[in-house]
Amino acid sequence: MEQRRYSIAVLGGTGPQGTGLALRLAAAGHDLTIGSREAERARAVAAELTARVGKTIQGSDNRSAAQGGEIVFLTVPYAVQRGTVEGVLDVLHGKILVDTTVPLIPPKVGTVQLPRGQSAVAAIQQLAGSAVRVVSAFQNVSAQHLNELDHPVNCDVLVCGDDRPACDSVIGLCADIGLRGFYAGPIANSAAAEALTSVLITINRRYKIAGAGIRITGLLKP
Amino acid sequence: MEQRRYSIAVLGGTGPQGTGLALRLAAAGHDLTIGSREAERARAVAAELTARVGKTIQGSDNRSAAQGGEIVFLTVPYAVQRGTVEGVLDVLHGKILVDTTVPLIPPKVGTVQLPRGQSAVAAIQQLAGSAVRVVSAFQNVSAQHLNELDHPVNCDVLVCGDDRPACDSVIGLCADIGLRGFYAGPIANSAAAEALTSVLITINRRYKIAGAGIRITGLLKP
Repeated sequence: MEQRRYSIAVLGGTGPQGTGLALRLAAAGHDLTIGSREAERARAVAAELTARVGKTIQGSDNRSAAQGGEIVFLTVPYAVQRGTVEGVLDVLHGKILVDTTVPLIPPKVGTVQLPRGQSAVAAIQQLAGSAVRVVSAFQNVSAQHLNELDHPVNCDVLVCGDDRPACDSVIGLCADIGLRGFYAGPIANSAAAEALTSVLITINRRYKIAGAGIRITGLLKP
Repeated sequence: MEQRRYSIAVLGGTGPQGTGLALRLAAAGHDLTIGSREAERARAVAAELTARVGKTIQGSDNRSAAQGGEIVFLTVPYAVQRGTVEGVLDVLHGKILVDTTVPLIPPKVGTVQLPRGQSAVAAIQQLAGSAVRVVSAFQNVSAQHLNELDHPVNCDVLVCGDDRPACDSVIGLCADIGLRGFYAGPIANSAAAEALTSVLITINRRYKIAGAGIRITGLLKP
């Protein structure tokens, strides 16, 4: 089956999670635009990424990026997650929004501190309503490993969402960059992936490693 | 290092999670008593388990079991978790309580539905106070696989608790039965393991497998 080539925007794409995903998705053949609050900063980082991956990655402000993307990734810190989505909500109509947000609250980032509604990503689906196909994914993948293009990423991706075809599209993007994505349930289940990130941070510290991840076991065909 | 041999009680030990853990811990050389609300039922199941494992497993009511155990496991359904602990609280003083509870709310057991305080096990630590050393563990391990003694259990154990030496003791018990236990943070982090169980149930259904589990990756010494 031929791989579908998408125009993908990465909002907050100048941070480590954003650059890592943009690099990997561009290397897999997709057309990438990274967004930032400052278009100039986005263009500067995009130029660096373009040099690294050998394929043009565009940079623009978050809003223009969201407008141009068929699929929009959100890779901003939790503190600005809601505000960033509110600023582009009207141009997300009908699109898949892949929200990678983890509700980490410094300084205790190794302690699970889920928001009142339990999932930071489910809150965005509630905000956006059914017009936006919100999918939760990539919370547990090490940004550091994503950015090292020659480093295999030894982590599965839990993909949650109320829109199953949208989840399947994101599972396809996982496969494009060499990761196994698993349908992990409705958007409420994003709480599991979000909470797990603090556990992985704790394990990194306790066992003095970088980039702990998870693999799903028990599959008939591993 | 010689393995310490413990007297271990398993409250609610006639259910699948309880029998599986009792079998594995007895096979590893520990002295097991399974508890039940009805002592007669506990004794009947204990006799079956004894025959299977070739080592005596005792059966009694939950209270007597808790009294006799140095380490007490809790393997009851969420609906009776709190009541069961309240009934034995006075005999748990100073002991390690290994709470395996997952807050599944039928019929939607594949959907994360964490309690208001986020973690069912953290709620027990709050109830018990500092006199009881509550450790959260074994939420993600397939009861079915635990019960098949010749089936290797391909799943790591997330171990959470506010009492680090107690967590280390439970990580030791994991090793005794051939599992890798990881210190996964304070008792609040139990929310991650609890939520993950609904994700694994969803994966079992979606991918038509039994007993999906997780492995931690990224370790220097795998």
